[in-house]
Amino acid sequence: MKPKDEQKHQRLLTAAITILAAGGLANFSTTKVAKLAGIPQSNVYIYFENKQALLAAVYQTTVHQQSVAVTGGIATDASVADQLAASVQGLYQFALTHGDVATVIRLLTGDQQFKTTLAAKLADPENQQIQALLQRGITQEILRPVAVDLLRYFLTDPVYRYADMVRAEQINATPEGLRQLTAMVLGAVLRPTSYQDWLTRSAPLN
Amino acid sequence: MKPKDEQKHQRLLTAAITILAAGGLANFSTTKVAKLAGIPQSNVYIYFENKQALLAAVYQTTVHQQSVAVTGGIATDASVADQLAASVQGLYQFALTHGDVATVIRLLTGDQQFKTTLAAKLADPENQQIQALLQRGITQEILRPVAVDLLRYFLTDPVYRYADMVRAEQINATPEGLRQLTAMVLGAVLRPTSYQDWLTRSAPLN
Repeated sequence: MKPKDEQKHQRLLTAAITILAAGGLANFSTTKVAKLAGIPQSNVYIYFENKQALLAAVYQTTVHQQSVAVTGGIATDASVADQLAASVQGLYQFALTHGDVATVIRLLTGDQQFKTTLAAKLADPENQQIQALLQRGITQEILRPVAVDLLRYFLTDPVYRYADMVRAEQINATPEGLRQLTAMVLGAVLRPTSYQDWLTRSAPLN
Repeated sequence: MKPKDEQKHQRLLTAAITILAAGGLANFSTTKVAKLAGIPQSNVYIYFENKQALLAAVYQTTVHQQSVAVTGGIATDASVADQLAASVQGLYQFALTHGDVATVIRLLTGDQQFKTTLAAKLADPENQQIQALLQRGITQEILRPVAVDLLRYFLTDPVYRYADMVRAEQINATPEGLRQLTAMVLGAVLRPTSYQDWLTRSAPLN
């Protein structure tokens, strides 16, 4: 079904993100979304078949935004490790300015029940670029031999948590802090030898 | 106020953990807790002054359980790195068998608003033992020079996520998988030199 009004479609998605970020999945309903978007409840179904379809669209659009932010700062001819370091920094800037989107992504990817209902892989090119980078890292034995989902988790969740702490003024935002975070994430995902290589090429960390 | 009946006190806490794990903070109410515990709503306040006090008690009891699980497997005369490796493994076993408790801890520690309302530091000896271990690691320049909260996050959240993935049968539980997870966590929190030392002393990771 083709949405009749792109602007209303977008308004529903934005409202859904706000409702999810504030109240979580348990509290989520199309009634609340319609109310916040200022669109009659009965019209929601013109755009989204049901609640599950709306959630799937939210997932798709938020992961797309995240993927664009991450890939935007990446030089595709750089080494896998340098691309991953750049992805941490792109994601951090994104998380600082898009708190709600970051919350929703963590919420949806952390919910096993929701994840298993998502049949299709995300098809947008930016997300596929990240997927390809990780596959290359695994094949070339740069990344640790663990599940891709675990690598993706380590490359994103700590960055979101760090941005949360900065926003809550629990820690100060400094270039050194971001450098340490990047080193922590790479220390987790890279094989020891690749991590040492990356360290040697980067400015020394104390 | 001294609880009148230790068994009812415990039943309310257990019900609160179940309700929180299923529906999150947004959906949490003393009404639901009373109903699940089979205790009249009006009697809840004999045990907990208000919802906030009940949540604080849930936080205290869940963190205590986690701390006991973590410190139980630790040889206090071992090196900081080996103690942290043992803590990852203790926490993993705990997370596998106490899914609800793990969910609640992640939920409460991830909620900045809730954390800032928690005035007092947790006073139980096992939690203080972990705190002291981290302080020692920082002072001795074994752990990275970052906020203790960030170190605690890296030492716990990935382990919980990994246990979630195992429970959801997204990944298989193997000794090698747990070894890789431990190496990822230590690669994140230890300074590069300490990590290399630990690697050299441990069985080689490919």
